[in-house]
Amino acid sequence: MRKVYYNGKFVDETEANVSIYDSALMFGDMIFEMTRSFNKKQFRLKEHLQRLYASAKYLRMNLESVMTMDEMEKAVYETIKVNEPFFNDDDEHRIMIDVTRGLLSIYQEVVGTHKGLNIIIADFPLRWTVRGMGELFDKGINAVIPSQRAIPASLLDPKVKNRSRIHYLMANMQVSNYEGDNNWALLLDTDNFIAEGTGDNFFIVKDDVLYTPEPRNILRGISREYVFEIAKELGVQYCECNLDVYDVANADEAFMTGTPFCVLPVTSLDRQKIGTGEVGPMVKRLIKKWSDNVGLDFVAQIKDWNKKFDSGEITVSPYSFKN
Amino acid sequence: MRKVYYNGKFVDETEANVSIYDSALMFGDMIFEMTRSFNKKQFRLKEHLQRLYASAKYLRMNLESVMTMDEMEKAVYETIKVNEPFFNDDDEHRIMIDVTRGLLSIYQEVVGTHKGLNIIIADFPLRWTVRGMGELFDKGINAVIPSQRAIPASLLDPKVKNRSRIHYLMANMQVSNYEGDNNWALLLDTDNFIAEGTGDNFFIVKDDVLYTPEPRNILRGISREYVFEIAKELGVQYCECNLDVYDVANADEAFMTGTPFCVLPVTSLDRQKIGTGEVGPMVKRLIKKWSDNVGLDFVAQIKDWNKKFDSGEITVSPYSFKN
Amino acid sequence: MRKVYYNGKFVDETEANVSIYDSALMFGDMIFEMTRSFNKKQFRLKEHLQRLYASAKYLRMNLESVMTMDEMEKAVYETIKVNEPFFNDDDEHRIMIDVTRGLLSIYQEVVGTHKGLNIIIADFPLRWTVRGMGELFDKGINAVIPSQRAIPASLLDPKVKNRSRIHYLMANMQVSNYEGDNNWALLLDTDNFIAEGTGDNFFIVKDDVLYTPEPRNILRGISREYVFEIAKELGVQYCECNLDVYDVANADEAFMTGTPFCVLPVTSLDRQKIGTGEVGPMVKRLIKKWSDNVGLDFVAQIKDWNKKFDSGEITVSPYSFKN
Amino acid sequence: MRKVYYNGKFVDETEANVSIYDSALMFGDMIFEMTRSFNKKQFRLKEHLQRLYASAKYLRMNLESVMTMDEMEKAVYETIKVNEPFFNDDDEHRIMIDVTRGLLSIYQEVVGTHKGLNIIIADFPLRWTVRGMGELFDKGINAVIPSQRAIPASLLDPKVKNRSRIHYLMANMQVSNYEGDNNWALLLDTDNFIAEGTGDNFFIVKDDVLYTPEPRNILRGISREYVFEIAKELGVQYCECNLDVYDVANADEAFMTGTPFCVLPVTSLDRQKIGTGEVGPMVKRLIKKWSDNVGLDFVAQIKDWNKKFDSGEITVSPYSFKN
Amino acid sequence: MRKVYYNGKFVDETEANVSIYDSALMFGDMIFEMTRSFNKKQFRLKEHLQRLYASAKYLRMNLESVMTMDEMEKAVYETIKVNEPFFNDDDEHRIMIDVTRGLLSIYQEVVGTHKGLNIIIADFPLRWTVRGMGELFDKGINAVIPSQRAIPASLLDPKVKNRSRIHYLMANMQVSNYEGDNNWALLLDTDNFIAEGTGDNFFIVKDDVLYTPEPRNILRGISREYVFEIAKELGVQYCECNLDVYDVANADEAFMTGTPFCVLPVTSLDRQKIGTGEVGPMVKRLIKKWSDNVGLDFVAQIKDWNKKFDSGEITVSPYSFKN
Amino acid sequence: MRKVYYNGKFVDETEANVSIYDSALMFGDMIFEMTRSFNKKQFRLKEHLQRLYASAKYLRMNLESVMTMDEMEKAVYETIKVNEPFFNDDDEHRIMIDVTRGLLSIYQEVVGTHKGLNIIIADFPLRWTVRGMGELFDKGINAVIPSQRAIPASLLDPKVKNRSRIHYLMANMQVSNYEGDNNWALLLDTDNFIAEGTGDNFFIVKDDVLYTPEPRNILRGISREYVFEIAKELGVQYCECNLDVYDVANADEAFMTGTPFCVLPVTSLDRQKIGTGEVGPMVKRLIKKWSDNVGLDFVAQIKDWNKKFDSGEITVSPYSFKN
Repeated sequence: MRKVYYNGKFVDETEANVSIYDSALMFGDMIFEMTRSFNKKQFRLKEHLQRLYASAKYLRMNLESVMTMDEMEKAVYETIKVNEPFFNDDDEHRIMIDVTRGLLSIYQEVVGTHKGLNIIIADFPLRWTVRGMGELFDKGINAVIPSQRAIPASLLDPKVKNRSRIHYLMANMQVSNYEGDNNWALLLDTDNFIAEGTGDNFFIVKDDVLYTPEPRNILRGISREYVFEIAKELGVQYCECNLDVYDVANADEAFMTGTPFCVLPVTSLDRQKIGTGEVGPMVKRLIKKWSDNVGLDFVAQIKDWNKKFDSGEITVSPYSFKN
Repeated sequence: MRKVYYNGKFVDETEANVSIYDSALMFGDMIFEMTRSFNKKQFRLKEHLQRLYASAKYLRMNLESVMTMDEMEKAVYETIKVNEPFFNDDDEHRIMIDVTRGLLSIYQEVVGTHKGLNIIIADFPLRWTVRGMGELFDKGINAVIPSQRAIPASLLDPKVKNRSRIHYLMANMQVSNYEGDNNWALLLDTDNFIAEGTGDNFFIVKDDVLYTPEPRNILRGISREYVFEIAKELGVQYCECNLDVYDVANADEAFMTGTPFCVLPVTSLDRQKIGTGEVGPMVKRLIKKWSDNVGLDFVAQIKDWNKKFDSGEITVSPYSFKN
Repeated sequence: MRKVYYNGKFVDETEANVSIYDSALMFGDMIFEMTRSFNKKQFRLKEHLQRLYASAKYLRMNLESVMTMDEMEKAVYETIKVNEPFFNDDDEHRIMIDVTRGLLSIYQEVVGTHKGLNIIIADFPLRWTVRGMGELFDKGINAVIPSQRAIPASLLDPKVKNRSRIHYLMANMQVSNYEGDNNWALLLDTDNFIAEGTGDNFFIVKDDVLYTPEPRNILRGISREYVFEIAKELGVQYCECNLDVYDVANADEAFMTGTPFCVLPVTSLDRQKIGTGEVGPMVKRLIKKWSDNVGLDFVAQIKDWNKKFDSGEITVSPYSFKN
Repeated sequence: MRKVYYNGKFVDETEANVSIYDSALMFGDMIFEMTRSFNKKQFRLKEHLQRLYASAKYLRMNLESVMTMDEMEKAVYETIKVNEPFFNDDDEHRIMIDVTRGLLSIYQEVVGTHKGLNIIIADFPLRWTVRGMGELFDKGINAVIPSQRAIPASLLDPKVKNRSRIHYLMANMQVSNYEGDNNWALLLDTDNFIAEGTGDNFFIVKDDVLYTPEPRNILRGISREYVFEIAKELGVQYCECNLDVYDVANADEAFMTGTPFCVLPVTSLDRQKIGTGEVGPMVKRLIKKWSDNVGLDFVAQIKDWNKKFDSGEITVSPYSFKN
Repeated sequence: MRKVYYNGKFVDETEANVSIYDSALMFGDMIFEMTRSFNKKQFRLKEHLQRLYASAKYLRMNLESVMTMDEMEKAVYETIKVNEPFFNDDDEHRIMIDVTRGLLSIYQEVVGTHKGLNIIIADFPLRWTVRGMGELFDKGINAVIPSQRAIPASLLDPKVKNRSRIHYLMANMQVSNYEGDNNWALLLDTDNFIAEGTGDNFFIVKDDVLYTPEPRNILRGISREYVFEIAKELGVQYCECNLDVYDVANADEAFMTGTPFCVLPVTSLDRQKIGTGEVGPMVKRLIKKWSDNVGLDFVAQIKDWNKKFDSGEITVSPYSFKN
Repeated sequence: MRKVYYNGKFVDETEANVSIYDSALMFGDMIFEMTRSFNKKQFRLKEHLQRLYASAKYLRMNLESVMTMDEMEKAVYETIKVNEPFFNDDDEHRIMIDVTRGLLSIYQEVVGTHKGLNIIIADFPLRWTVRGMGELFDKGINAVIPSQRAIPASLLDPKVKNRSRIHYLMANMQVSNYEGDNNWALLLDTDNFIAEGTGDNFFIVKDDVLYTPEPRNILRGISREYVFEIAKELGVQYCECNLDVYDVANADEAFMTGTPFCVLPVTSLDRQKIGTGEVGPMVKRLIKKWSDNVGLDFVAQIKDWNKKFDSGEITVSPYSFKN
């Protein structure tokens, strides 16, 4: 069975639990990062760790004093090493790092043995996260703007990657009653500018320039940053600016970025075609360049996994409970 | 050791944990209630359960279909019965009911054995929750308005008693750097009306009338409702209305309400006296009436516990890990 | 063919047009009222006219000086009389009064012959307006809250019944992509309180009390006012207050009011049942009382028309272009 | 008499009307463009058409499927050709294209013969639109900020050139009670940044740089864009940014841009001089350059027309009802 | 010459000055009250003093410790007594109490002799304050809503009668450019509800009920409170509620209240008649009742003074510099 | 004794007062500037005067017509000359220019001899202003974000350097109850972006770039502008942009700018270290460069003064009341 790093030890995945008296469950008080590998090589791990430590600082968790960034990096690689035997050859390692503030003080004396932060590193086959996404690379997402707005930075800062986010779930539920099977929520912030998806960043393309919301009421995604790098390499201009619905409705192309899938085309907004309504040339260029850079056709990989899911080739038991 | 009800079974308190892949930890997606007993008799349990089911409905958890309100009530009483042996004679039962949406779908097949909602009922000696509060009944709280604002109902409704609330923690941390040891956060909402504390409701008294914020950007507390009842019994008028800082600064008295402590005086606002700066007659009347109604001088009880804590009479081990 | 009153004359319905240079088309600068009859007797016509003149005053159209309220009332009755021959026995007269500011000044000299306000009164069989609504009295509306918010009174006052309202159309279009065939938009205002539908007012029922939004960012509907009257007659309490989504989600019943259909049950909010999800007893009482008061079972009437539409008994030609 | 293109046919200008049952009159649901010629040559027609089609797309009118942009352009030129005989030699063609969604569905069967969009192209002598403006080129506009705010993009997007805009009229009426005869409304948006006039865009000049509001809560005017082009040609810097009243009060110069008059100086703000209170050198340069580019001294032209109006040389009858 | 009470002494009116290093001039940090007499008897002085002490408390000036409310009252009466010789028989005493925080600390050692609060009581003939108002009782005020909004309570609370209020002056200046000579500013708050004038409260009358803004973003005027008392005496209902422009535009009557003039009719809003455009019966009743209660026809008094001003009977010198 | 320029004359500092009937005290209606010298040479006096005249223009004081900018400059230098005898050799001249609108009109005839604006120029030893600041250059400021928000430009523009600013005092008082002795208020604006201190501008340093709030809801400080100049000289990039709390929490360094102290390090935010928590290299570079440019080590100067204060070498009497 897969193992989870838990405060310096490895426990079975089914034992990777958090006490009901932990601040994580009493206040949604947990920060996290999620990374992926390409060909089993972790991507931008350092950037993820930097963001994790920035989140900790903002929320006044003394993560640095418990574990340095280097130690954290080492622990991640150790976790991967421990889990590799439970992974298939064509698997990728999706790492999830959770940090909780630990048991609330009144419970520390009563229930707990461990005081202070909990540091948890889990390794999971990426294929599950991207299950069913294969066809979206061809037909694209239909972005739907729900009534739910993004919570602004001043109230609960989305730049801090944290777990107090029922509102993302509310947005997803609102969109789930929409016609069609490729609907993803696209949130407006309380200024009614485009913010982000519920776990992904959003871009439009207009006249060969990339536009994406200012990094204010959004998570500053690592994939989002990487698209900037790719754009520079390709000689494509990009701009962080305030976007509103009109800009999206009249864009040439649009896409989401996120760690598991990198870049995913958005071909319509509320069932109105964006541009031609087809996956556009810029999205294709970005995917191509990204794939080249990491030496992996990640779209083909996702499609391949999806085929295996559909054919029943991937089933649960062998991966989860073996050993 | 105390036992926790967990999806129909009882587990040791130290085993009352939630998987890192549960929606509760991925999205702060957990609702809860916290109740207390007076003389070991649960207070307003039905009202708490009604609110729990209303929270579930709003968040689209099908709680009703998993467990009816009557069954839940029964489970609470069973939990108390199971735990009573581990409680002292002078203890009160503080019940915490947690409901999580359960494992996210991609993990259900992989990690989980239990699908769907998790229903958890924990029983805990109230004394820990009110530790150190005894003297506040005499000197009162100093309310401090932090920079952090309450998240409004439209973004993440506080009427839904949920666990996505790091912002409460942020408010508490901001206030923690304030001079003195009796500072409690008093939040403004984004309209800059008085909202609530970070886990308690707020009242002022002016010319013998009680005023408390409209039930909009606050939790509609059970203790708050009970103060209305007491007020009716005492022939005291009360009013739910928009309050601003000026109203508090010029009030005659003020107080917080909350399940563990019922009514707690607030004697200053940002170190400026409210009224005389002493605990006022209305607060005393309310505490007296409440005590009479429930047949317990809960203030004396809390002070008694605090004395025992200070004297070392209450220590952790006998209660937590015995058995 | 039906006739339309147009500045003192009657013209064919197909000739009831407005110049492209009229302020109505240049600025959406038109006010209107829509009334209905029960058993061919106009309902609350005076109240509609009062609101029309209030709209005119707010927008600084000198309606009073062109036509007094009494003259307007007379013109309405004359219009009905002229059109009665073209109406079936089981028809009801739906009157639409439009007032435009007339040709913009630069066109008055060039294009127009008529200067100043245009006053237009059209009479139309109500059955067309309520086509397809029959079954909604049984299964109820599914209210959907779109991303589009109501424009607040300070920017373009909805209390003024005017024609600058593309945003209503935007809301309707957003909702049209939602699953199911009984979706109606329910708008939030920019404070995120419940406002109104796109042409109807909204009520909830909780513990036998009626609640409806404060008359601020909504049209103050005549049917809404009439529900207050009925409530008084029935000894039912009602309250105009700020409502938010939580209140609707946890209501016992809900309904829309509007001139053509009077009272229409809302049985779900975003596909989540309101109360039992069935048409509730209060809605039934209100419909019953209204019907009794006007001496017409208007629900049966609407259902009857719908049956005739479905059976092909009602077709267009005989009514529209005869004569 | 002048002819108006109406769904493929030409009708007399006095017959260019819209049914009272058209969505244009029921919802202010009409988009439009207004263009002008210089020396009878249309200016930036393509840009206007692109904006028209963007407006249509945003409002989900299937304009593209009814008429391509090329066909529309052709229809415009045909309309001009048909009308040229009714124009004087010194006239310019002001084209107004209106697109309505057409009759609401319940009326399509009853009243209408035409289903779907109405496409209307009217040609009108520009001189009427700029009547009385001649002297403003010398003394400038007094900008007045009314209480009425611009409706923000999220509620009713001004980037969509539409006819739901009574609020523009409200602003004009508020300003009309102000002392003096050269008052034009200058709207703030709801963030209290400078937005636009009620049909024109606004610029200030400070230290030889042009500043104009960000293209968010305003119409993105074609003349505004053309000023950017001219600025580039002149080597003048320009900036789209958030402006507030302070910036205007302390500007060196200011001006409005609009299709009929191109560039019009604003010499005071609420009767406080802007800069010297005289028409400034930058405004003069822009007007000069624009005139040179189009080969027409449009200021002289407007002044000439105004002289003819004043002298009675231009009268209505010959142009309007001849033929 | 009139004398001013200044920290326990009486100084000449021309010597009643404040150091440029006083907090009053460095921060607008001064609170005040203004009262009047009827027949030389101070009106509601206690209520004014209570408000003054509430203002002091909010701003954390320790007024209570420097001077009790009783001592303040006594000082007021002493000031009147000292000044009475300089007042005419038909004069009324307009008392202005100013409290400043005193010299900023760095200047206390350097410049000042007096440390701490400055308490200043000035007595002035009321006639100057109401000069020119006589005719307004007959023709009424034209209320104009300026672009400037009231500063909300959360930013600078108008319930605290303080001197940081340039924004009132800005509003007055905006309105001063409006046509006519009876224009008074009527401010909206930032929620765009009616707030108050720049020194007066606002009421409307509709169907014989008085409506006035909720006491939130306004000064809670003593005259406003007194109108409530009168209304009770007259059996007239009144209501504190959110009002918007529509409500004013369609009111039957309107009026302002303020200490110098008590009740002043508002007969138009932005030159649109309110009700009949004449002074209405309710305003007359209120003025009559107030006059009866205080035993003085204050309207006649003001008109009489105005007549004397116009006739030159009142001139400056005899009152100001005699002695 | 030091002399103050007062409307063309010099008066004793203790006589530099303003009448209680001046608009400055009735409305907080005063604008001002504060400058300093380095080695007795005034710094950026022209820029200060330009801002003063811009403030006057915005508030519609006709300063220009009373005194030109050149005359004002001359008066400043004259004031310095007159006061130099009362200054020590190691003193610097802190000039404060106040302009008030003068007596309100009703008092002009009665009390006043001077009509119109009051122009006041005071000269004061800078050492008093920076008393106690010496150690802050070593340990830095702890910035605290109070509940009080900055008043936005639309309500009372902070770009106009005026005296209606009790809210600054409120912010200071809120922060004064915070633990520690180096707390300075850092205000958010109502959009919850970082605005400014209560008399100083704020910068952060991140990856060797300077970031400071957009010049919108802040005073556009002269020192702030000068930091831009220095940055250019040093080849350091700077950016005016929207900053939120997250940006500050994760900055490398931070500092305040202000006329008396030029640049002052901010080493923590609400007691959380910014960067290392030490004064950083960029702050040191800026201070060094500034000192070099003005030929004075102003930090050493301030520390020297502070040492003299502590040792009793500086006392009040010799400077203030001599002569």
